Amino acid sequence: MYSPSIQKLIDQFRKLPTVGPRTAARFVFYLIHLPQEEVEDLANSILELKRAIKICEFCFNSFEGEGNLCPICSDRSRDRTTLCVVEKETDLISLENTKAYQGLYFILGGTLSTFKNRDIEKLRTKELIERVQKANFQEVILALNPTTEGEATILYLERLLRPLNVKVSRLARGLPIGAELEYADKETLKSALERRK
Amino acid sequence: MYSPSIQKLIDQFRKLPTVGPRTAARFVFYLIHLPQEEVEDLANSILELKRAIKICEFCFNSFEGEGNLCPICSDRSRDRTTLCVVEKETDLISLENTKAYQGLYFILGGTLSTFKNRDIEKLRTKELIERVQKANFQEVILALNPTTEGEATILYLERLLRPLNVKVSRLARGLPIGAELEYADKETLKSALERRK
Repeated sequence: MYSPSIQKLIDQFRKLPTVGPRTAARFVFYLIHLPQEEVEDLANSILELKRAIKICEFCFNSFEGEGNLCPICSDRSRDRTTLCVVEKETDLISLENTKAYQGLYFILGGTLSTFKNRDIEKLRTKELIERVQKANFQEVILALNPTTEGEATILYLERLLRPLNVKVSRLARGLPIGAELEYADKETLKSALERRK
Repeated sequence: MYSPSIQKLIDQFRKLPTVGPRTAARFVFYLIHLPQEEVEDLANSILELKRAIKICEFCFNSFEGEGNLCPICSDRSRDRTTLCVVEKETDLISLENTKAYQGLYFILGGTLSTFKNRDIEKLRTKELIERVQKANFQEVILALNPTTEGEATILYLERLLRPLNVKVSRLARGLPIGAELEYADKETLKSALERRK
């Protein structure tokens, strides 16, 4: 139904996370009506991204600049006794924005839900074990989503980390601030009740 | 919080329809982890799009190929007595996919909700009037969304088209197939009841 250049770009946009065929089509028609200059800017930013971005050798976060370590990992003022394991970059940013954590991070690259034949290597469990073995961490915080996949991954990582003799913790579960008891799901309410203080 | 190349691309992706800051960030990190080749392919498809696509002189649909008219407008087998006015390209595609319409189209380019200082010129009312005056249409179907904006636009277009002595219709409202009465909103149910047959 669509002409070839449109269909090709729809197919490429569909690969982006959360994008279905309708949204992909809307993106394409949006670009069609954008001034030539802005479309070129977008294409150039996409190309520039891969040129500018490096992946941190320790935590796998992406960064721009000198050296092989990201600004967090190379910041000598940070607490080097705590390692916080997150699923992805955006989770790291969310935690950094709280300003409540001063330790180091490690980006796992996924959760157990992505444990398909090809995706299994994307989970950096080997690298995590290596970091924990080499460095002198006193605590590893498993800051994964409180979802089925996150919980499964936490259980998996806890088993892997057990022989390494390091304290392993996870984020607290409970009612989010501003929540109403009436609308809280049973599991969250149960956690909030059990962990009351 | 993000490095400059990442932030720049996030800002550009945020301009796409339906994309907020979180989704834009997810797009960027997805691209960071994509092979160089695929990222280049995407950038090239975006650049190629503007080169390949033309806008139809009659209906404003986008197309690839020879001439100034899109395949629908240049298809001599189509019914040239009916004009169907849609808001955007994807609505045209949805109607074409029903195979229930054989006439011509006209893409309005928006609805009254976009009636802001700058957007007012995007609505092709002048061109619509011109098409209807010049051609010999017996019916103009206003196939806009049954939303507040769509309804307002329909009323506006009906007033503009009234002096031109052409039959003006709109899409039927009622229960969508597979819907349950229990969950239908009041206005839809009212329409379905009033237009029962």
